[in-house]
Amino acid sequence: MACFITFEGIEGCGKTTQMRILAKRLEALGNSVTTTREPGGCPIADKIRGILLDAENSALVPLAELLLYAAARAQHVAEVVTPALATGRVVLCDRFTDATLAYQGYGRALDRETIDRLNEMATTGIRPDLTILLDCPVETGLERAMARINSTAGAREERFELETMEFHRRVRDGYLQLAAREPERFVVIDGAAGVEDTAAAIETAVLAKLSGRG
Amino acid sequence: MACFITFEGIEGCGKTTQMRILAKRLEALGNSVTTTREPGGCPIADKIRGILLDAENSALVPLAELLLYAAARAQHVAEVVTPALATGRVVLCDRFTDATLAYQGYGRALDRETIDRLNEMATTGIRPDLTILLDCPVETGLERAMARINSTAGAREERFELETMEFHRRVRDGYLQLAAREPERFVVIDGAAGVEDTAAAIETAVLAKLSGRG
Repeated sequence: MACFITFEGIEGCGKTTQMRILAKRLEALGNSVTTTREPGGCPIADKIRGILLDAENSALVPLAELLLYAAARAQHVAEVVTPALATGRVVLCDRFTDATLAYQGYGRALDRETIDRLNEMATTGIRPDLTILLDCPVETGLERAMARINSTAGAREERFELETMEFHRRVRDGYLQLAAREPERFVVIDGAAGVEDTAAAIETAVLAKLSGRG
Repeated sequence: MACFITFEGIEGCGKTTQMRILAKRLEALGNSVTTTREPGGCPIADKIRGILLDAENSALVPLAELLLYAAARAQHVAEVVTPALATGRVVLCDRFTDATLAYQGYGRALDRETIDRLNEMATTGIRPDLTILLDCPVETGLERAMARINSTAGAREERFELETMEFHRRVRDGYLQLAAREPERFVVIDGAAGVEDTAAAIETAVLAKLSGRG
């Protein structure tokens, strides 16, 4: 049955790894699963992602950044998320609207009302059924993210890894506040635990949600 | 003295040529002139322009297109238009907010209120002092635009040239309606006349505006 599950958290919290594990598990249980990510998830949104994450674009002003996220989201929702849900698939998405609130709202202190309005516009009202917030200390997350970047031959540091520790702390706190505000949608899971423990906690939360909707 | 002048009109109406002629004339008269264009006008907005105009991106949905224009505009206004006006320059801009209303509003029938809201957001309220609308029949404009495209070695047709005649007619009519609604800001000039006649008409309109503000 169609279900829209988003993964959120700071850099290096383990979202991508955990999403991959969950997708395999759900498929083994007989679900049709679409895994996708934001910004990106389709060719046009991936081009927008390229602009957003390139450390070369340090002149990008916060408002233009916010509008680029909204543009990528509008394309991705129309082209990927909405059609997949319409055919009864489980959609797992690495970052979604909460990331914009956490990074641009709490991180960059952009006006919350403007972000809400653009999120609403870009998603045409589609909301996650369940959001997994992988929470971990900023130091742990950035250490992992940097190790990943350094292991990629010829990689440049991405734009968000260049932000201050203080920025990433505001983002983490922002995520926790968003989760506290909507406890029926969010599940907060320890992203600093071992990969298998985290995966088990996620699976429990997701199966509870899927069976509750069954 | 600072003055913000925008050039509008359908493809092939002569905007770019006329803007260049006006810039030279205004500089000869002792003005400091910044010439720029939308979408684009600075490196980040030019990257967004690349996505918007590439015929390869035919899957771009109207809402994502609108948000990309807004993103490019936010960056361009913050990085180019606002600083130039603040230092007393005359800014000539090839397309601005009216183009979004004409193409996305009248052309694609997107909600006018959404467009207005995004224009207001992206410009932070900056409005042109004078808008030159170069009006010409759709057939004349597209013939010129196609000749230009075909003369460029290895060029692909750009995304907007692939639209139907009916689309371009709606855009032209839309521009004329916008001009009728704000006669104090718009000057409508015949873009199908010879280059020199058109240039003379534009110069007259611009010098009247500049002296009125002197």
